[in-house]
Amino acid sequence: MRQTLEFLLYDWLKVQDLGRRERFSDHSRETFDAVFDTCEKIARDKFAPFNRLTDTEEPRFDGERVHLPRATHEALAAYVGSGMLAAAQDHAYGGMQLPCVVEMAANCFFSKASVAMGGYAMLTNGNANLLMAHGTPRQRDVFAMNEFSGRWFGTMCLSEPQAGSSLSDVATRAEPDGTDFEADPLGPRYRLTGNKMWISGGEHEITENIVHLVLAKIPGPDGKPLPGTTGISLFIVPKHLVDTDARLTGERNDVALAGLNHKLGYRGTTNCLLNFGEGRFTPGGRRGAVGYLVGKPGEGLRCMFHMMNEARIGVGLGAVMLGYAGYEASLAYARQRPQGRPVTSGGKDASRPQQLIVEHADVKRMLLAQKSYVEGGLALELFCARLVDEQHTGAPDDAAAAKLLLEVLIPIAKSWPSEWCLEANSLAIQVLGGYGYTRDFPVEQYWRDNRLNMIHEGTHGIQALDLLGRKVVMDGGRALLALAGRIGETAQRAGQVAGLAEAANELGAALAAVGGATKKAWSTGDPEEALANATPYLQAFGHLVLAWVWLDVALALDGRDDDFAQGKRAAQRYFFAYELPRIHAWLGVVARREPLTREMRDAWF
Amino acid sequence: MRQTLEFLLYDWLKVQDLGRRERFSDHSRETFDAVFDTCEKIARDKFAPFNRLTDTEEPRFDGERVHLPRATHEALAAYVGSGMLAAAQDHAYGGMQLPCVVEMAANCFFSKASVAMGGYAMLTNGNANLLMAHGTPRQRDVFAMNEFSGRWFGTMCLSEPQAGSSLSDVATRAEPDGTDFEADPLGPRYRLTGNKMWISGGEHEITENIVHLVLAKIPGPDGKPLPGTTGISLFIVPKHLVDTDARLTGERNDVALAGLNHKLGYRGTTNCLLNFGEGRFTPGGRRGAVGYLVGKPGEGLRCMFHMMNEARIGVGLGAVMLGYAGYEASLAYARQRPQGRPVTSGGKDASRPQQLIVEHADVKRMLLAQKSYVEGGLALELFCARLVDEQHTGAPDDAAAAKLLLEVLIPIAKSWPSEWCLEANSLAIQVLGGYGYTRDFPVEQYWRDNRLNMIHEGTHGIQALDLLGRKVVMDGGRALLALAGRIGETAQRAGQVAGLAEAANELGAALAAVGGATKKAWSTGDPEEALANATPYLQAFGHLVLAWVWLDVALALDGRDDDFAQGKRAAQRYFFAYELPRIHAWLGVVARREPLTREMRDAWF
Repeated sequence: MRQTLEFLLYDWLKVQDLGRRERFSDHSRETFDAVFDTCEKIARDKFAPFNRLTDTEEPRFDGERVHLPRATHEALAAYVGSGMLAAAQDHAYGGMQLPCVVEMAANCFFSKASVAMGGYAMLTNGNANLLMAHGTPRQRDVFAMNEFSGRWFGTMCLSEPQAGSSLSDVATRAEPDGTDFEADPLGPRYRLTGNKMWISGGEHEITENIVHLVLAKIPGPDGKPLPGTTGISLFIVPKHLVDTDARLTGERNDVALAGLNHKLGYRGTTNCLLNFGEGRFTPGGRRGAVGYLVGKPGEGLRCMFHMMNEARIGVGLGAVMLGYAGYEASLAYARQRPQGRPVTSGGKDASRPQQLIVEHADVKRMLLAQKSYVEGGLALELFCARLVDEQHTGAPDDAAAAKLLLEVLIPIAKSWPSEWCLEANSLAIQVLGGYGYTRDFPVEQYWRDNRLNMIHEGTHGIQALDLLGRKVVMDGGRALLALAGRIGETAQRAGQVAGLAEAANELGAALAAVGGATKKAWSTGDPEEALANATPYLQAFGHLVLAWVWLDVALALDGRDDDFAQGKRAAQRYFFAYELPRIHAWLGVVARREPLTREMRDAWF
Repeated sequence: MRQTLEFLLYDWLKVQDLGRRERFSDHSRETFDAVFDTCEKIARDKFAPFNRLTDTEEPRFDGERVHLPRATHEALAAYVGSGMLAAAQDHAYGGMQLPCVVEMAANCFFSKASVAMGGYAMLTNGNANLLMAHGTPRQRDVFAMNEFSGRWFGTMCLSEPQAGSSLSDVATRAEPDGTDFEADPLGPRYRLTGNKMWISGGEHEITENIVHLVLAKIPGPDGKPLPGTTGISLFIVPKHLVDTDARLTGERNDVALAGLNHKLGYRGTTNCLLNFGEGRFTPGGRRGAVGYLVGKPGEGLRCMFHMMNEARIGVGLGAVMLGYAGYEASLAYARQRPQGRPVTSGGKDASRPQQLIVEHADVKRMLLAQKSYVEGGLALELFCARLVDEQHTGAPDDAAAAKLLLEVLIPIAKSWPSEWCLEANSLAIQVLGGYGYTRDFPVEQYWRDNRLNMIHEGTHGIQALDLLGRKVVMDGGRALLALAGRIGETAQRAGQVAGLAEAANELGAALAAVGGATKKAWSTGDPEEALANATPYLQAFGHLVLAWVWLDVALALDGRDDDFAQGKRAAQRYFFAYELPRIHAWLGVVARREPLTREMRDAWF
């Protein structure tokens, strides 16, 4: 992977050029490579060898404490030691001022080695970043700083048992804690009551404290919470209460683990049902979880979703890395497993020695599919991460253009690898055959782990609604036009390169097909009609984007003719020959606003 | 499921008419229904409640014995008590003379309740049927009869650690056991030495004995086994030796469990590495597993594959039933889970109560997809099983026609549900969201269990080579022509029915596309060129067959207008709108003999 990662970063995205910008002026390819060296080594030594262990010894709750394998503690200690938690932060805050794209690329090594152990760090980083954007200076100093240093870890508490995708139904209440609640130096102080579900990293003893970021509703003057998402606010709820110098006060907050979820995969990350304010603990002598308001009342979702782009790129990248791990494992297997013989016009000659299975056309098909999914997915995620850097450090026009492009790309960055790198994991199992179906090989675990990614951080269906219902129509379709411009540019360049001209035409045709279907979906202006086929639209859009990414990557090979370049070209050819033609079946139902799913009645199932 | 099963059997396939045939003259819809009642009840009481238990308490080997949950013993005792093991056998052998299609339909209840527990019975049935076809009268009496009665269970021992798909590389040796080896009343006696891998039901203590059917090579005069499959013979190797009256002699045969495979799913069925002739036991005072030749030397594969059609229908049906179980579980969940609100032109009204998710278009899409996969798959398997009956009990011309049609349908019957009912299981997880990802709900287990089906009993790739490399070209393409005739007939009938005419045209066009691609694939006559894209061909062919099955099923609704009929029509419409158009992407690479996978080199990955 390292060679592909470097090619994408330096030859394709030219991230070394970011060193010319003031914020990154200490950086160059050399400093980036040094970060990769460190991360690759820690991932290899402390994460990868224990990935299976985190699955077999899943978190256990004895009613009092949650037990995790010692390896998880040690791996995360090494991660903290690397300084990666604060990698993108200012020097002033102890950070490295790494570009987002380099930070994300470096984290790939950990995700590939053990996505579940890496989960704690990703969540903590997202949590602290959010506080840097929306917290008061003291909230940053007390909470975010101690997360960047790895002293405490963090969580995001959004879902509830009865409110998963539908956050407007959040029922956790936050009530002012005393008449002087606004005077608390850590922020306006509330007491929270409610249940939060699916909380990754919600309980553990890896760190001395856990900083929960919790969505809850402040009741209106009539004592009732506002309906919808407008009434939602955001709170810092630490597991252990702390003072303004970030010392533990010795008092336990009223946050209790109600139970651990026992999952299909991703078992190394604890996933919890947390009860806030059930009275298990009584800080200040009474029940209710103490929470400090972040930002203004009613702005909880806006704050929480501030970091959404990065979080969704992170999920996509995790899916890609699981796919990558399976690709590498199945390729290694195919290179050493003899089985079968070639069928020639003369039949098979059973007296000849068996072939390695990597020589079979169908195995090569399965490996090429994986390669096109995981390397294409990696390219897409790095491209998006580079846009995040552009948005934050580019010239105003470039920043605005990057922001616009991200609008339509983020649903794909989240959903596409969740679907296709999962398929890659299934193909990895298939390459190993019966062995792949056993727990003696790692590929079955990757497949189980990856199945989560279509569910969390906005389900596949939610991404589809976001794309077709909002992103491609916003501002008269400006974001879609911007993407079309970029795709057209790539097609034009490729049209002038021998060997890529046909693909350029196919890309242009695919773009036209997606554009046409978008118009037809919305031609009646009725969201129910347009959105009934949002998921097939998302799938077609995703394949269009990946075809574009692959063609653009192929252009960066710039005439190279070595094995590496031939492999990239083959993956690009695979994607255009086997994958891109799929879009027409998906777009068919979108374009004619196929009414079947709306007409279907419950009683007919 | 029961209603759909009965509709397919009685309204579509008219299996009640089989009662007019001499072999089935004791039977009628009433006797069939009575069998279904019995099986449905045992499956509900003894299988379904313990399906999760077989997963969590997977088989454990203490070095001496294999431990299974008591529930497995009890479920299989109830199965044996039902008489289903001998359901299709002659009355003279204690059987019920049930048609194959009814026997398979009845077994659906067990597979849906617990595919892993049902596995022992399916294997035993296949084993005993094979002995009925190829064994001597005494081999039938001693071994097959005691399997049909459930006193002993059976296995099929084909694969070896170094020989999975490639049976020509079987290395287990069988050498004549003494100079009088041909005089043994149980059959020519050999001593076997070798290792057999992936043996389902290979060790357990459910029954007092296990009858292994083992492929091995008899060395030629030079002491070397023949290369290829021609040297392979078939042997009965009982775990405990028996006499001609089927009494255990008290001597243990030299068959030793080397280890249990720890699988991703399907955990309730033991899966074993067995060592034959390692000397752990010494029957007659010396090492070597005692085995009795079945049929003639060198005819092992022919004998083993005699029952292949039924075995592959059985695997397909198992995949369908896992899909069905997931469909029912996710439908039940969608009908009671509130979440979200409809998006109308006026936006969303958060003050309204939430909808049940079964009302969301995207959830209906996921449920319709499952319905079309699992009910369509069920129809296909029952159709094939009905052809098996035709082959065995039809008039000579009909029997020959049925045999011909089965040639091209069997690879689809095995592969299609393995792929698409697995997808159904993934959609079931998606409908349940986070809950579907936990082990508190059954859908994740169905998904894990089902992943096996693309691997065993001939992998997906093997089915593809069988279809494109052999079945569609044999005898000048007669089998393909026969299928085309049937499809054309259905299309013609549907063309005259209001509401189905468009689908009839689409089916005709799909048939023409598959036919055209078949010709083009073979236009150079080079198997390497034609077969490089055998798997996409298999996928397209499968979708064509399922579209045909769905249209034919829709015709059998015959103007009915109730909820049941509307549901079937919706599933048929779903398949034509969302699924059938996929074939063009698959056929594209087939038709142009896309050379990419052949040109790809190992070094480029």
